[in-house]
This record gives sequence, structure tokens and C-alpha cells, in this order.
Amino acid sequence: MMQSVSYTHDTGKQRLHNFSAGPGALPTEVMEEVRDDLPVFDGMGASIMEVSHRSKEFDAIWASAVEKMKGLLGMGADWHVLFLQGGASMQFYQVPLNFLRADASADYLNTGAWSKKAIKEAKRCGTVNVAASSEADLYTYIPDPADWQLDPKASYVHYTSNNTIFGTQFHFEPEATVPLVCDASSDFLSHPIEVDRYGLIYAGAQKNIGPAGVTAVMVREDFLQTKKNDLPTMLDYRVHVEGDMFNTPPVFAVYIVEKVLRWIEKNGGLGAMTARNDAKAAALYAAIDATDFYNGTAKTDSRSKMNVTYRLPSEELEAQFIKEAKAAGLVGLKGHRSVGGIRASIYNAVSPESVDALISFMQEFERTNG
Amino acid sequence: MMQSVSYTHDTGKQRLHNFSAGPGALPTEVMEEVRDDLPVFDGMGASIMEVSHRSKEFDAIWASAVEKMKGLLGMGADWHVLFLQGGASMQFYQVPLNFLRADASADYLNTGAWSKKAIKEAKRCGTVNVAASSEADLYTYIPDPADWQLDPKASYVHYTSNNTIFGTQFHFEPEATVPLVCDASSDFLSHPIEVDRYGLIYAGAQKNIGPAGVTAVMVREDFLQTKKNDLPTMLDYRVHVEGDMFNTPPVFAVYIVEKVLRWIEKNGGLGAMTARNDAKAAALYAAIDATDFYNGTAKTDSRSKMNVTYRLPSEELEAQFIKEAKAAGLVGLKGHRSVGGIRASIYNAVSPESVDALISFMQEFERTNG
Repeated sequence: MMQSVSYTHDTGKQRLHNFSAGPGALPTEVMEEVRDDLPVFDGMGASIMEVSHRSKEFDAIWASAVEKMKGLLGMGADWHVLFLQGGASMQFYQVPLNFLRADASADYLNTGAWSKKAIKEAKRCGTVNVAASSEADLYTYIPDPADWQLDPKASYVHYTSNNTIFGTQFHFEPEATVPLVCDASSDFLSHPIEVDRYGLIYAGAQKNIGPAGVTAVMVREDFLQTKKNDLPTMLDYRVHVEGDMFNTPPVFAVYIVEKVLRWIEKNGGLGAMTARNDAKAAALYAAIDATDFYNGTAKTDSRSKMNVTYRLPSEELEAQFIKEAKAAGLVGLKGHRSVGGIRASIYNAVSPESVDALISFMQEFERTNG
Repeated sequence: MMQSVSYTHDTGKQRLHNFSAGPGALPTEVMEEVRDDLPVFDGMGASIMEVSHRSKEFDAIWASAVEKMKGLLGMGADWHVLFLQGGASMQFYQVPLNFLRADASADYLNTGAWSKKAIKEAKRCGTVNVAASSEADLYTYIPDPADWQLDPKASYVHYTSNNTIFGTQFHFEPEATVPLVCDASSDFLSHPIEVDRYGLIYAGAQKNIGPAGVTAVMVREDFLQTKKNDLPTMLDYRVHVEGDMFNTPPVFAVYIVEKVLRWIEKNGGLGAMTARNDAKAAALYAAIDATDFYNGTAKTDSRSKMNVTYRLPSEELEAQFIKEAKAAGLVGLKGHRSVGGIRASIYNAVSPESVDALISFMQEFERTNG
């Protein structure tokens, strides 16, 4: 059941089936390209992490990453693409600092631990209206839009498109009369979105698009014009839009993101990613639903196609499952420390073969222990 | 004059003499180790950037980086070591946000472009006393401590230990009755420091200790206790001290930093780095001073051992120098876009052989063009 890609005779050098929730699996060919550019990036006399971020070589990588991002998402000239630092956690504060106006509130949808953290930071900056919440039901579902209490005068509506911990995901894009702001960290570029609805989209890279240490932020010019003034320099989106690398960016992380964007493009773009991810998720949920031995934790219509969370009949069996899976070459299956259970994260780079291997293992494990 | 380390028969794959100001040169053996850990970190089935930051493997790397940092600097249990994001530019704001008390001011030494940016952000948070400045003389020197106007009641004294753009450096550590805060980005771990004088030290990694995208922050517990309350979560140092990786850190960058710390340790620690850097700088400045063809831009007693800045008789000759140097395998010598001229950055990882190669090239260039 081990993947066949091996780099030496040492079995410790095999690429295994990687279901890590994040930092998560990246395409093997991207990792091989990164290796081949070390310790010398062709023609530079050094690796790409040892040269000026204003060198023509890195500038070309940066420009390509911006261009590919806009191309994949179908963003026009009114969109700015930034590569910032601090992860989604910094965006939780930076978004309201810039956009939560004193004469208005902001609408937040509370659908998981990350949404809740975003709400906490927004409250430091102004009035927050929690328009909907599934917190009372342990975040097992996405609230029905019919029940949302949206404010038509809100500065924006903030939502978290996918919830890594609780395994839920929006399968629709919210409709609102004001711009959407989306924390898309954990399903970013796994499917197309209607960019016209959004004012700002942010995503920590470490799930679908690269290594930890870079945050993709896309902001639309007309929304940016609603920004507040006199902000700390590094937290002002306009500074980064106009600065053209205002300060030294996380060069190596952006270099890898560019390679992943290239990989997505080469593999058919977001439409093809959707088909690939739909098929993987459908197969895995079908395996869970085929038996009472495995039980999905999210409500059916809110199930995430990125993070598949489920339980076994006992915590002892779960521990045994994780241990035996690892021995069989299936790694990263342990649920988040706050909720336990099993979590199989099947981001863009996780292959259908890895999902098939997991399903086979699950069936075998049930036969032996069920 | 080319370095001998070549990775294929293709000359584009040679490691050249790299004088980049930042991101700067890293040790070749560290770059080779990073390559060898791709695409599989031994025994993990994936690279280190594709697994949880809470995995035991990454946790061991993190703990080792913290331990080696404290060991190299001689820091006791009263010091916390953090690996944050956003570079020194974010620290310019985060430091005063946390420590510039409402009932006091903070002293700042204005010795270059980075100091000036730090002062600008501090003014957003409270009262700033510029205790000394060399701005009127184009930052060509470090002001004499006898002339500093320090406030004994200041929250802290902030200084920038080395100035990459103007090629100056403090060759002493300021004496003050209050804690020092130091932006040590561009000479960090190039020599020992007296840590007892400091409350907080920060350094963007991309000069002496790693790739861009991680900031080392060392904060002393008693100074941390003077911190203000109710701060944005990600900007509160206490959150990161207590959080034990509060949010996903820049995993791959920290992994490389740990390798560089290990390399410094193996090569004799900060005492040995001082000897190595002193010898390199002495040789290069001697070559500059041996002729009127080259002219150092910083005043002699303030010259940086990290960034050696000098001019040629004309801008045309400077352009020709940079072009011919590159052809001879010496890269990254162009001065900062704001000041022009030549800048040879000779951080820890730049070998004495590279400096010798530069000196030989300079002598040959003068013979041909002088």
C-alpha cells in the first residue's frame, strides 16, 4: 500500500500517503523541482533564497505568481494580489483594522474555531454583528442562509469557507448586498469562486498552495478605497499594493507558491481541481457511509471536501487505526487535538490513489477490528 | 576566480561568490543539507514543509533552534526566543505597541533608513525622543555616545546595530539605565553581545541566519512584564511566549535557521564568527584604503563589518565594475538603489576566499581602468 516514489534504497526516503491537515501535502513534482534548484538556481550562482528580492530572477517569479493567481481565479485589473506574512491569524486583525468603519458594523458568520478567532479580533476594531452561528451545535454544520441576520449597511460580510477542525465547508457562496471577505485558507484554489461578490479574500498558503509562511491576499480596488487612514505601515493594505514588495517578502515561500500555481494551471485549472476533489471526497464519504463502524462528524450537506472528519466506535480503536495506518504508509490522519477522532485532509495535491489507499485500509481495518 | 563548487557540467550550476545584501548568502553545506531533505525528510514520508508544525519531528527542530539560539547568545532561563513573521518592519510597530508606555517616552538613535522607519512607527504609539541622529550627514557615522540625550525615564532605548544601506555599524553596545531594544537584523550572530543590557532583540533572518520570512525575537521576562495590555492577539509578545507556536510558524524557514545555528555552533560560535568577520572586513577595507581609486563612504570608525560600501571615480566605472565582477563570478555587488555605488555584503556565510577573490578583482579592475 506504500506509494512507489522512492529516492534511495532506504525506505525512510519514500513519499507516503500524506493526509496532514496543514501544513499539508504539496505536489511531488513541485518538491522535486525545488530540490533540483538547490543549492543553485540555474544561472544565479546561489539558491533563490540567497539573492535580492529585487533581482530580475525573483521579480519574474513574483510577477508570474501574481499573474497566475489572477488567471486561475478570473480576476481582472481591478484586483490586487499580495503575498503577506503572519498567516490568517494576522488577517483576522488586519481586515477589521482596515475596513470596519466607525459608522457601521461588520457581519461575521461563526462556523468554527477560526471564525471565532476572527470575530474576537474584529471586536477590537469596532462593532461586530454575528449574523449566524453553529457554535451551539459544536460547529457541525453551515447555518442556512435563510436564517442569517445580515445588516445591509455592514462594512462587509466575513466568512470562513472551510473549517479544518470540524470538517465543514460552504458549498455555496454567500449572497450579500455588501462585499464579502473570505478566509479561504483551507479550500483556496480547490474550486472556482465568483470573484465579483468579494472585496477581499485571504488564505494562509499551507493547505492548498504552498508552505507555511506566506499569506495570499487578494483585494479589489473599489473595496480598498473604503479603507481607513493612518494605519500602522505594515498593516495598511494600500502600502503593500503600492509598495511593489514594500519590505522583504518570504522569498522562498512565494517561489514555491508560484510552482504550485503552475502545477494547478498545468493540471487543468480550478475546474479540473473541482472534479478531482469532488471525486476524492465522494469516494471517501461513500466508504464512511457504507458502514456503521465509521461515523462522519459533520452534517451531510455541510461536509468538507478538504477535511474529512470521522470517528470509530472507541478512542482506543482510533489510536490503533492511526498507528496501523502509519505503519501501512498513510500519515497525518490524527484529528485536531481539540476534537480528536480521525481527519483525512485531501487537499489538491493529495492524489486519488492516496484516497483509494485510505479506503482500502479502512475496509481492511474494519474487517479485522469491526 | 570562480568558486569550485559545481553541481553539474552546466556552468549555470556553480556556486559563485555571493555578496548580496539580503537575502544574503547562506552556508553551502546548509543548502546541500536542505536539498538532501527534499522531497522526503528522512523517515517522515514527506518533506518537512508538508507535515504538521506540531509533529514530533518539527517540534524537535523548533526546540533545537530555541536552545541553540540561547546557547550562542549566552541567554539564561529569563529569555524567551520567538520565531515570528513580518520582518523587522513589523517589529518597528510591534515593539512600541507593546512597550512604549503612556507615562513615558522611548529613546531612539537615528542612524539610518531603518532607524527612521522604526521611529515613524513608534510615533503612532506614543512619545519618541530622538536621542541622537546622523541624518544631517547622510548617516555616514554612528553618533558619539557623549552627545546622546538619553532620558533616564524612557521605556527603552532603541537602536539599529548595523546599517545595510549606509555601511555603518555600532562597534560598542550602548550604555543606558533602561533596557536596550535592538534591531540586529543585519549583524545578528556575527559577534557576541552583552545580553544583560537588553530587554528585546529582533532580527529579520535574511542576512546572517536564514531565508527571508522569519524574524527571530528574543525578549527578557522582566522586560516583557512591562508590556501593555489588551493588544491585538498576533501583536502581543506574551501570546507567542505562552502559545508555544500560537499559530502556524514559517516551518521551512525555521528549519533552515536551525541548520544555520548548528553551522555557527560547529564553526566555533560567536567568538569564531567575530574573528572570521574581523579578518574579512580588515582585508577588504585595507584594499579600499590602499588606493584613491576606491573610496569608502562611511566614516572610518563607524565602518560596518557586514556591508562594505564604497565608490569608484564615476558612476560609469561603477556600472562597468558590477558588470565585469558578475562575469568573473562575483555577484550581488550593486549598492542600494537609494545611494548607488558598490556594496559588498560579507555576512557570516561569505567565506574569506570570496573576499580574497573580490580584492583580487578590485586590484585587477583598477590596473585596467585606473
